[in-house]
Amino acid sequence: MRASVKAIVMQGPYQLSLNEFPYPKILNNSALIKVELAGICGTDKHMYKGEIIHPRGIPANFPIIPGHEVVGVIENIGKEAKKEMGTLGETLNEGDRVVVIPALYCKKCFYCKNYYGISFCEHYQGHYGWGLTCKDPPHLFGGWSEYLYALPGSFLAKVPFEIPPEVAVLTEPFTVPYMVFNKAMHPYSLVKEGFSPGDSVVIQGSGPIGLAHLIFAKIIGAGQIIVIGRPKYRLEIAKKYGATSVINIDEVTDPQDRVEEVLKLTDKRGADIVIEATGYPEAVNEGLEMLRILGTYIIVGLYIDMGEIRLNPQRKIVSKWAHVIGIPGQTYQSYAAVLKIFKQYRKKIPFEEMITHVYKLEEAKEAMNKALSEECMKVVFKP
Amino acid sequence: MRASVKAIVMQGPYQLSLNEFPYPKILNNSALIKVELAGICGTDKHMYKGEIIHPRGIPANFPIIPGHEVVGVIENIGKEAKKEMGTLGETLNEGDRVVVIPALYCKKCFYCKNYYGISFCEHYQGHYGWGLTCKDPPHLFGGWSEYLYALPGSFLAKVPFEIPPEVAVLTEPFTVPYMVFNKAMHPYSLVKEGFSPGDSVVIQGSGPIGLAHLIFAKIIGAGQIIVIGRPKYRLEIAKKYGATSVINIDEVTDPQDRVEEVLKLTDKRGADIVIEATGYPEAVNEGLEMLRILGTYIIVGLYIDMGEIRLNPQRKIVSKWAHVIGIPGQTYQSYAAVLKIFKQYRKKIPFEEMITHVYKLEEAKEAMNKALSEECMKVVFKP
Amino acid sequence: MRASVKAIVMQGPYQLSLNEFPYPKILNNSALIKVELAGICGTDKHMYKGEIIHPRGIPANFPIIPGHEVVGVIENIGKEAKKEMGTLGETLNEGDRVVVIPALYCKKCFYCKNYYGISFCEHYQGHYGWGLTCKDPPHLFGGWSEYLYALPGSFLAKVPFEIPPEVAVLTEPFTVPYMVFNKAMHPYSLVKEGFSPGDSVVIQGSGPIGLAHLIFAKIIGAGQIIVIGRPKYRLEIAKKYGATSVINIDEVTDPQDRVEEVLKLTDKRGADIVIEATGYPEAVNEGLEMLRILGTYIIVGLYIDMGEIRLNPQRKIVSKWAHVIGIPGQTYQSYAAVLKIFKQYRKKIPFEEMITHVYKLEEAKEAMNKALSEECMKVVFKP
Amino acid sequence: MRASVKAIVMQGPYQLSLNEFPYPKILNNSALIKVELAGICGTDKHMYKGEIIHPRGIPANFPIIPGHEVVGVIENIGKEAKKEMGTLGETLNEGDRVVVIPALYCKKCFYCKNYYGISFCEHYQGHYGWGLTCKDPPHLFGGWSEYLYALPGSFLAKVPFEIPPEVAVLTEPFTVPYMVFNKAMHPYSLVKEGFSPGDSVVIQGSGPIGLAHLIFAKIIGAGQIIVIGRPKYRLEIAKKYGATSVINIDEVTDPQDRVEEVLKLTDKRGADIVIEATGYPEAVNEGLEMLRILGTYIIVGLYIDMGEIRLNPQRKIVSKWAHVIGIPGQTYQSYAAVLKIFKQYRKKIPFEEMITHVYKLEEAKEAMNKALSEECMKVVFKP
Repeated sequence: MRASVKAIVMQGPYQLSLNEFPYPKILNNSALIKVELAGICGTDKHMYKGEIIHPRGIPANFPIIPGHEVVGVIENIGKEAKKEMGTLGETLNEGDRVVVIPALYCKKCFYCKNYYGISFCEHYQGHYGWGLTCKDPPHLFGGWSEYLYALPGSFLAKVPFEIPPEVAVLTEPFTVPYMVFNKAMHPYSLVKEGFSPGDSVVIQGSGPIGLAHLIFAKIIGAGQIIVIGRPKYRLEIAKKYGATSVINIDEVTDPQDRVEEVLKLTDKRGADIVIEATGYPEAVNEGLEMLRILGTYIIVGLYIDMGEIRLNPQRKIVSKWAHVIGIPGQTYQSYAAVLKIFKQYRKKIPFEEMITHVYKLEEAKEAMNKALSEECMKVVFKP
Repeated sequence: MRASVKAIVMQGPYQLSLNEFPYPKILNNSALIKVELAGICGTDKHMYKGEIIHPRGIPANFPIIPGHEVVGVIENIGKEAKKEMGTLGETLNEGDRVVVIPALYCKKCFYCKNYYGISFCEHYQGHYGWGLTCKDPPHLFGGWSEYLYALPGSFLAKVPFEIPPEVAVLTEPFTVPYMVFNKAMHPYSLVKEGFSPGDSVVIQGSGPIGLAHLIFAKIIGAGQIIVIGRPKYRLEIAKKYGATSVINIDEVTDPQDRVEEVLKLTDKRGADIVIEATGYPEAVNEGLEMLRILGTYIIVGLYIDMGEIRLNPQRKIVSKWAHVIGIPGQTYQSYAAVLKIFKQYRKKIPFEEMITHVYKLEEAKEAMNKALSEECMKVVFKP
Repeated sequence: MRASVKAIVMQGPYQLSLNEFPYPKILNNSALIKVELAGICGTDKHMYKGEIIHPRGIPANFPIIPGHEVVGVIENIGKEAKKEMGTLGETLNEGDRVVVIPALYCKKCFYCKNYYGISFCEHYQGHYGWGLTCKDPPHLFGGWSEYLYALPGSFLAKVPFEIPPEVAVLTEPFTVPYMVFNKAMHPYSLVKEGFSPGDSVVIQGSGPIGLAHLIFAKIIGAGQIIVIGRPKYRLEIAKKYGATSVINIDEVTDPQDRVEEVLKLTDKRGADIVIEATGYPEAVNEGLEMLRILGTYIIVGLYIDMGEIRLNPQRKIVSKWAHVIGIPGQTYQSYAAVLKIFKQYRKKIPFEEMITHVYKLEEAKEAMNKALSEECMKVVFKP
Repeated sequence: MRASVKAIVMQGPYQLSLNEFPYPKILNNSALIKVELAGICGTDKHMYKGEIIHPRGIPANFPIIPGHEVVGVIENIGKEAKKEMGTLGETLNEGDRVVVIPALYCKKCFYCKNYYGISFCEHYQGHYGWGLTCKDPPHLFGGWSEYLYALPGSFLAKVPFEIPPEVAVLTEPFTVPYMVFNKAMHPYSLVKEGFSPGDSVVIQGSGPIGLAHLIFAKIIGAGQIIVIGRPKYRLEIAKKYGATSVINIDEVTDPQDRVEEVLKLTDKRGADIVIEATGYPEAVNEGLEMLRILGTYIIVGLYIDMGEIRLNPQRKIVSKWAHVIGIPGQTYQSYAAVLKIFKQYRKKIPFEEMITHVYKLEEAKEAMNKALSEECMKVVFKP
């Protein structure tokens, strides 16, 4: 164990120095992070220039170790902190790479209990990198340092192993557009319901309508996109257009197995959005099983009345707080909107390759048979 | 002028033939479209197989010329139709390439007046390709034909000249996911407010926060993305990450000129979404000028109190039905959400190249000066 | 027929006179309204004081007959206008009492086609009472007059016969809070989906949970509230708390008859919101039949799993664009919210009278039997 | 201290008995509630009849003390529990009347951290009254008992002193419609943004438009409604129509004092919704000061351009996460919607009394002077 820790200290506006602090001990509910990378943010520049009134009217609490964009590896973590600091409820351990969440929460006041993760804590303790002074032990309350000390009540976001530190260090600045565009989509919501960027989307059906939804999900920033359908011909096209997984119902013939496969792909919680694009009413039961709590299920393939199904509304809809929305068509305004999107994305996405077969008017029957065979995607006539 | 028109006729389930019809005359408020391409849709297949009850319980009205996914060129259009048929209020002319909107609207009934473009018309006339029989003149009410006759009350979506017919013919199937994902974003809205795919986004500010918004806008399917900032160094990075236009405030120094440039890029109507990411309060006035009616303005760069501005709330906010939203931070849950997006998109987007400079802790002043110079994007410390 | 019409003319700021104009002839697509009452609005006062720039930068077009808050009786209406001017698609006739909608719409431009009833018409003709001068014939373009001339393209809102002119004249000022609070509820929507004040609400179930929904619907400004349940004892309580109609399932035993009754009560279009509060899964099919197009169906009574039903998802959900939402519980924060509402409304609503029976702990069986009998509402123990 | 506690025990379906349990000791983070009233809920009846599968597939854990609708008085509460159990962040004490929230939360798992108060806890401990057996000490886990033992992690909603137990015991059943109608208004939100029933509304301006908003706020279930305006004549009318407080700007002349008064009336947090209905741009600054964090500010009175103001966008908008929405008009469809509301509410609300003065066309100047005097509400002409 090392004796001391180097950190940059901002004594006040335009004053920076490199100081040494003692290597700290952690408590049951705190943690020590070995910093890998720490960003310089606009706020740091404001602070350096002496423009130091933060939201809520809080001045910078000099001397400060700046740095609130921090990625590092947990070097030491207390027993309680292991269970409390992970934002997804996961247990954290030494060796985990994490992004430090700058704000501290008491979890007891009005705002912590009612404002769901926004940092308006009434027992304000500060933010790493600007709201906490390094005067007092254990000092290491900023990221421009070899180590950062995570106080009780901190949150750490575990970094997936695929993400290197150079990407993870950008997490904090990207949480800003994440909030901004979520707000632009759902102005009165901070909770993830409805579609948000990064969401997992299951598309039931691999025909042209299913494919159009896949391409659209891709365009709007979906995370995983799982296409369930048949035959292989169509699923290959789905992969080409960016499906992250496909499930062939000719191979995985038991609906329950398909549900299991989707759950396995979605942290056992189910997909955020499931879209029925099959035309078969039975798909509704299967799709609702694949949906997460508070998820959105949209039925769009059942344009034609194909009969009834047996459905348990309590288990499939109520007990999940599900949203089920039927969409049998479109507004006339949506045509111009789609043409604008084609214009923007046509160089990036080969929409026209969806057309796999072209026929003359004289070939009506051949065309129809090809369309019915499903060994095709979009079939068109060229008069 | 030709004497006859060839078209495929579905006489009933499993019955297809190629027939000839007379070349029709148009009226003041109708039009004739020379079909370029016409798709076969799942609905056509249902109809062919005799599964023929459409939404609203409407049976197929045999004999029918199928085809409601139609792109073609206007060969002849009546004087009134020129002004009425364009969905964007534009005047249509002979020679224009258009996509035919299948539903017909009386524009007088309860649903036409109150349901904004959804086809629940109480004086239902039918849809091209399935709801209108070809028994009666002028017969040509489907797309699997050399010509389609657009009745009074039809809408035609003009195709931008960049879009070839092979892409335009896919418009109708893509309007379905357009409705679906809009609904998933804004469940209680059919009108375009808030962010929707294809929207134009102006980002005021070209620093790391501005760039994060640009990348995010790209991920979620924005249409045009216009970045306004300085210096050239940063705007080049913005272009690399996909800005469709950049405006350099060192070159276009008059704010009114910048407003004009944005208006020019957005059909004179202004951008759908404008995001302030500058840190300068003066940007608010300029940004609001760039916003379209019913647009959304989000202030996110003003994290630090930089003082007052002069603002005309009537002209800038009220008279535009504007939404103005302030966002000074993020929830702790948003960190994990961003990491998931990084994981999904890291192969496609080189997030890490946003980091242009890396410093040691010993180089605090050099790092800070680089950050202040703006000849950089994200600057980080590597302890 | 009278020879002349008296009207107040504002020649310019601070200039008012009483003038005479010729009694006008109407066209096929125009109408003449005999004014009953016409309000003075803040805008009129601004105009009088010379503060005359309206939204969109439009100056008052003097000389003007002021008055855009107008109720009157149709004295004469053209054949086409009869079908075009009613906002609900109804046919208008001489003798109908109407409120005049001040804005004019060309119905052809971008805004008229895409902004759903907001008056941003690009071929702006003006508003009654300020945007149209009375210089030109037929002159009568304001409400401070014996007659108002409704130009082609005008909309007239028909006044229900229960509303006297003294209430109807207030329609225009009340459309403002109608927009405001709808916007506050659904910021990104101008179309009526989800709950809006005045909506019709059907509550399936007359037990305590059904009653709580009835009282809540009342508190939040529902229009009609139709309670469907049994026995008479409970439906009487429902009426006491403000149900506008009750349907006793012991009397109307055929579900289809109950559906018909609801449709009859809701202009044949179905209810805006239907809430399942019965605990019986079969209610779901019946409730969905009662729902209007784009309506919202919320399942809340199926807290306990009571099995499956047969359901046609195309006919019941998709073809209606229905929203179906399951709610099996509540957040912990909702308790304090309800207590605040109790505090506000307890003098107006006798919540405590929902408790019809109080038992001691020693009387557990009697209490349970009473609760099971349904000849009670809320039963409580007092230890 | 008493030796024993009586409670009703459900041993299994159709089995009820009255048992005695030892009076329990509490811990630092638990509490004991002396029950005043406890309801019988539909769930209790299901359990009694053996229909016992709750959401999430949880069977009733017999033997059980039923009762999850519980109001009582805190008899004993641990030191930590005092700070943790209140849902509004308030400190609880012996003698406080509280409603018991049935669900228990670990506060550490994925759902507790990400689903904001919905009880999907992954370390499920049970619900009072059905999910916790009374086999194990301290036994008292249901409300049909003299005492209920609140385990660590419980939440208690403090009852305002105005609410008697007979009303408070109904809290739980009313949280259901609270969720339902909030969901119907904001389908993708569990957090209180935008308008929700019970919200505090400030209306700046006491003219006819301000009054229309007051009446509308009343109709839609607002909580406190604070009207700020002048002169006394108008504020008296506001009180008659249900304003819960009025602030006379002729008396409270300093804007900062008015802000203080509003904050005092709204738990120091500011109003949920503030509506500008004055026509004076200066009101915008004052109104934004009165707004709570994440509140909605709607500008509707600035129909006419009355010039600029000085505004600090960071302090007034950004640092509060405020929504600011401009509304300069209404859709034509809103007229019929308002008339429907008039029809529904005309017997309850004397809308027509808003008209305080009626003039003939010959009296234009008198009418205008009266309107300008503000010693009136709505002034109308009767031709």
